[in-house]
Amino acid sequence: MPKLKKATKALARQTAAKPTLRAIKGGKPLPASKNTPDDAPAIALNLPPAKLSPAMDAYFRKCQEKLGFVPNVLLAYAFDMTKLETFVAFYNDLMLGPSGLSKLEREMIAVAVSSQNRCYYCLVSHGAAVRQYSGNPLLGEQIVMNYRAARIDKRQRAMLDFAVKLTVQPWAVEDADRERLRRAGFSERDIWDVAAVTGFFNMSNRVASATDMRPNVAYHGQVR
Amino acid sequence: MPKLKKATKALARQTAAKPTLRAIKGGKPLPASKNTPDDAPAIALNLPPAKLSPAMDAYFRKCQEKLGFVPNVLLAYAFDMTKLETFVAFYNDLMLGPSGLSKLEREMIAVAVSSQNRCYYCLVSHGAAVRQYSGNPLLGEQIVMNYRAARIDKRQRAMLDFAVKLTVQPWAVEDADRERLRRAGFSERDIWDVAAVTGFFNMSNRVASATDMRPNVAYHGQVR
Amino acid sequence: MPKLKKATKALARQTAAKPTLRAIKGGKPLPASKNTPDDAPAIALNLPPAKLSPAMDAYFRKCQEKLGFVPNVLLAYAFDMTKLETFVAFYNDLMLGPSGLSKLEREMIAVAVSSQNRCYYCLVSHGAAVRQYSGNPLLGEQIVMNYRAARIDKRQRAMLDFAVKLTVQPWAVEDADRERLRRAGFSERDIWDVAAVTGFFNMSNRVASATDMRPNVAYHGQVR
Amino acid sequence: MPKLKKATKALARQTAAKPTLRAIKGGKPLPASKNTPDDAPAIALNLPPAKLSPAMDAYFRKCQEKLGFVPNVLLAYAFDMTKLETFVAFYNDLMLGPSGLSKLEREMIAVAVSSQNRCYYCLVSHGAAVRQYSGNPLLGEQIVMNYRAARIDKRQRAMLDFAVKLTVQPWAVEDADRERLRRAGFSERDIWDVAAVTGFFNMSNRVASATDMRPNVAYHGQVR
Amino acid sequence: MPKLKKATKALARQTAAKPTLRAIKGGKPLPASKNTPDDAPAIALNLPPAKLSPAMDAYFRKCQEKLGFVPNVLLAYAFDMTKLETFVAFYNDLMLGPSGLSKLEREMIAVAVSSQNRCYYCLVSHGAAVRQYSGNPLLGEQIVMNYRAARIDKRQRAMLDFAVKLTVQPWAVEDADRERLRRAGFSERDIWDVAAVTGFFNMSNRVASATDMRPNVAYHGQVR
Amino acid sequence: MPKLKKATKALARQTAAKPTLRAIKGGKPLPASKNTPDDAPAIALNLPPAKLSPAMDAYFRKCQEKLGFVPNVLLAYAFDMTKLETFVAFYNDLMLGPSGLSKLEREMIAVAVSSQNRCYYCLVSHGAAVRQYSGNPLLGEQIVMNYRAARIDKRQRAMLDFAVKLTVQPWAVEDADRERLRRAGFSERDIWDVAAVTGFFNMSNRVASATDMRPNVAYHGQVR
Repeated sequence: MPKLKKATKALARQTAAKPTLRAIKGGKPLPASKNTPDDAPAIALNLPPAKLSPAMDAYFRKCQEKLGFVPNVLLAYAFDMTKLETFVAFYNDLMLGPSGLSKLEREMIAVAVSSQNRCYYCLVSHGAAVRQYSGNPLLGEQIVMNYRAARIDKRQRAMLDFAVKLTVQPWAVEDADRERLRRAGFSERDIWDVAAVTGFFNMSNRVASATDMRPNVAYHGQVR
Repeated sequence: MPKLKKATKALARQTAAKPTLRAIKGGKPLPASKNTPDDAPAIALNLPPAKLSPAMDAYFRKCQEKLGFVPNVLLAYAFDMTKLETFVAFYNDLMLGPSGLSKLEREMIAVAVSSQNRCYYCLVSHGAAVRQYSGNPLLGEQIVMNYRAARIDKRQRAMLDFAVKLTVQPWAVEDADRERLRRAGFSERDIWDVAAVTGFFNMSNRVASATDMRPNVAYHGQVR
Repeated sequence: MPKLKKATKALARQTAAKPTLRAIKGGKPLPASKNTPDDAPAIALNLPPAKLSPAMDAYFRKCQEKLGFVPNVLLAYAFDMTKLETFVAFYNDLMLGPSGLSKLEREMIAVAVSSQNRCYYCLVSHGAAVRQYSGNPLLGEQIVMNYRAARIDKRQRAMLDFAVKLTVQPWAVEDADRERLRRAGFSERDIWDVAAVTGFFNMSNRVASATDMRPNVAYHGQVR
Repeated sequence: MPKLKKATKALARQTAAKPTLRAIKGGKPLPASKNTPDDAPAIALNLPPAKLSPAMDAYFRKCQEKLGFVPNVLLAYAFDMTKLETFVAFYNDLMLGPSGLSKLEREMIAVAVSSQNRCYYCLVSHGAAVRQYSGNPLLGEQIVMNYRAARIDKRQRAMLDFAVKLTVQPWAVEDADRERLRRAGFSERDIWDVAAVTGFFNMSNRVASATDMRPNVAYHGQVR
Repeated sequence: MPKLKKATKALARQTAAKPTLRAIKGGKPLPASKNTPDDAPAIALNLPPAKLSPAMDAYFRKCQEKLGFVPNVLLAYAFDMTKLETFVAFYNDLMLGPSGLSKLEREMIAVAVSSQNRCYYCLVSHGAAVRQYSGNPLLGEQIVMNYRAARIDKRQRAMLDFAVKLTVQPWAVEDADRERLRRAGFSERDIWDVAAVTGFFNMSNRVASATDMRPNVAYHGQVR
Repeated sequence: MPKLKKATKALARQTAAKPTLRAIKGGKPLPASKNTPDDAPAIALNLPPAKLSPAMDAYFRKCQEKLGFVPNVLLAYAFDMTKLETFVAFYNDLMLGPSGLSKLEREMIAVAVSSQNRCYYCLVSHGAAVRQYSGNPLLGEQIVMNYRAARIDKRQRAMLDFAVKLTVQPWAVEDADRERLRRAGFSERDIWDVAAVTGFFNMSNRVASATDMRPNVAYHGQVR
């Protein structure tokens, strides 16, 4: 495909959308001695941080204020402002933008996918998000460990079955699989979103595993 | 993570970068009768196209002019301008932006990954790109079929070994794997790029498989 | 093999050994509303409990006193006193008896194996034990998610590599694998114990999965 | 779980149960020259035998008398009387105790499981048991090689399908699998027993593979 | 089985059958510079060619005349006339002899099987044959990449599903699989032929992979 | 490839070679009641036998005389004389013709491959051949169950490692694998033969599994 040329107003517009995230508050502080091994550095590649652009500087401050820390995935991308900003824009639209899937459902997919790929970073950070959004500490654990153990309704089970099949056997997904989602009540747009979130975490899991990305320690204690 | 709030100037700046793509010219036209079955519709979900934003309208025109067609993956995302624009921005930086990996090398990763995931859309479209960038029709076929059959140098072989392991066993990638890339001459930043391209196609393969995305017929005849 | 005939004094003697377990204390109580779904019943088979033998009655009381609950795996076996008692005797010797492996190490194997088999019951209950014995909440999570993410020494890494290979490719374990354990400092007897614990959880994982065994909710909150 | 404290009378009682095994008689003696390579030592770990407890001494004598040899698995465990006695007690209850599954059926599960795990020791010794209990030399071979080739009734096929799924994909066993057993005529208790035998051989296969346990040569010639 | 003793008249008769192959004409010539790397030698084993027997000499001349080249698989076998002649006889009967499967269908199986085994030689040469027989360049690519992406009728889909299952899980093929072929319209003899072609390419794929067999470059450009 | 036209004298000559097989004598007769279920019919496809050609009639008589029965694989192919004769010619050259591999070694490969594919027919018939050629009943069992359990020399272990890798991961066989065989003492021609035998049984296993081919009962009792 040719390289994109013009500034995209729409992208700017999108990234300016009102924040609607119900902040995931940091868990109880861990003893300092336990904090060290996993908190730094964010990844196993030696990539010096670039100067934060004003937009990203503001975003990091917002993270600090709302979460109590900047997620390590953002620090990992911060060696290059273009990469950081496109990642943030992509992520925000996908996980926080308008969708027929609730934010919890998108996080459930994130965790079910990350469990198949055994991605430590994503299981810790998005496992915390499932606990937070659902208010159910067990649900987060179940999807981390084996989503089939979770007591969820048929719609959500169909959603996770699709996400897991798409993760482990993408070549075998066919019309019958899409039909199963339709019968479970998903719209055409919803099916796109299930696929897009599943795809995204198949990407993120691999970037995290390739770089030995370490989750912020604070996630571990959240919503237990 | 909190939702991103402010317009990102840097993102606008990036997407305004000068086009440097050596255009992949459309192959010899196929007989009309063969054109039909695979050309339309782009995906198996019924998602009516949104009105193109000015930036995307210009981009689609540029595709038409340079390639002779708009890649179906762009038509697939065109039901939602935010998704289309973030996808295009992400893709352009990754595959066409500055990197220690040549554009050919990034396409080689794309195809090696897509071969593991048996993604019809990506194998056709990026297989054509490998043939184009390399000027070697055989190389494209080899990576589609079994990258181990390609006569490539040690550096590129190490790169594809890493990408394929990260695709099929992401949980098993560790320091020794990164070290192997370093010994083959890859910088810290190059390793990030190998991981990022590998991750991206693990995403795209799944979006394409989930939606039965069909490649433009024109790719098949390119650079044979 | 012929059926065993005589009462085994030694077995009686062994099961009478002094308790040395550092009790895993119950975690913070969960809100009652969250307690219900996962706490009962212990398994998905309808097996009415048998009358507890005096030994088992005493043992259950001791569990209640030390842990605050009777582990559901014991309730699961309690439909048949012979099965319960042989299971308890087997388990106690293996996990709490004398060994060159520390109790933490035995629990680490339990969790690494259960992660490969994605056993919800064992990951929850033995994940809590790893957190407890190590005093390191992260270590438990890491072994649940991907033991390769844990920062452990070479000896323990060799131990878990062996346990995981024995779990997923038992047919491929050969002299070279045993040699690797010896070089990491394990004695002949230690190697037996690594094998025995690995084997045991390959059994327990399957009994738990076959019966949809549900972990006591209290485990989730322990040592976070 | 806390360590078990008191002597268990019930366990003693159980292990004192009347022997009901129809002895598997030793096959035709093999030429001495063929006897050596596989007969000794029992395992590849150097673990000197402990002094047999009176109960185990009596049991070994009984094996010698009934079978013509002491099974190597017992010699393997004989470095530690507690381990030997708990193993024997566990095994005897499981494979020879009361159950809705016949002894042949339990041995069929043992062999089907061991075939998935390619366990040489268990395939030889329990393959012989299937030939013995069934009086059908072919049945033993079929389950060793591919249980789907055996001409067995629907009940037994459902049983082995469950055991094999539980062996290779324990995480995917769910209500539908248990329902299939119920529809094939298995009681709740029978399902437990299928699971317990399947689990046990997933343990034994791994202990045998980890230690390179060698079957007694006599098994090979039995009931051909 | 005992060694075959007498000359087989019938075999002579069969191999003398009239040629009915619609010759696959060589594609457009590739630039010489691209021709070199893949054209020679045919395999990575150093096996000097034997003197061609009169029958094989005539056959090679016929290949040269009809195709413009001698397929490298024939050069690979030409170190031994017996092996070459038995291979050619076997191949000719299977792929070109009378059958309820069209020649295209047999080539479709060849490619679907070779795709599972990722055999570079067979995918190139038989991919070209599918393009040639079908007159549909896309069909060849689809079966190379993922046969599920091909728009084929139910009969052919059932045929390829069977061939692929037989390739990747031969142990799991049972009556129900044969019944599915019968219901799709295949006769008993047709089922044999599906199995025989599937089997043959599971052989050829392995001989080619074991020897690094390189396809003639001419195949790449055929029927694009 | 074009269809072969002329009668091949060389093929005739080859198939006329002197029989050198050391006949595998039929084992002890089984009770009639056990003979029935597995002896007939040879396959699960209803393919009426063709009239035997004179060569095949002579060959079947020779089988009857030397083995005491006609192997069911020959009966399976006997619906078509061309197929039977090409199969027999191919098989005879491969398994009984001149080679740097002994006949035992070729049979060892046959069994190791068939074990990976869990082919009941081939494991029974070629397992008997290994017992016969080696005079070692245990060796046949070991290769059926797990070739790694066999006490064989380094050369034969390298041979079976290659055959098994070529069977389960043909796409991953590369120069390093061939080098390993060379270092173990195999000539170029020997490597071809290892590949050819491995390939052949990957074919035969699939034809047998696809047709539910049943081994002659007599094999089971041979050389125990």
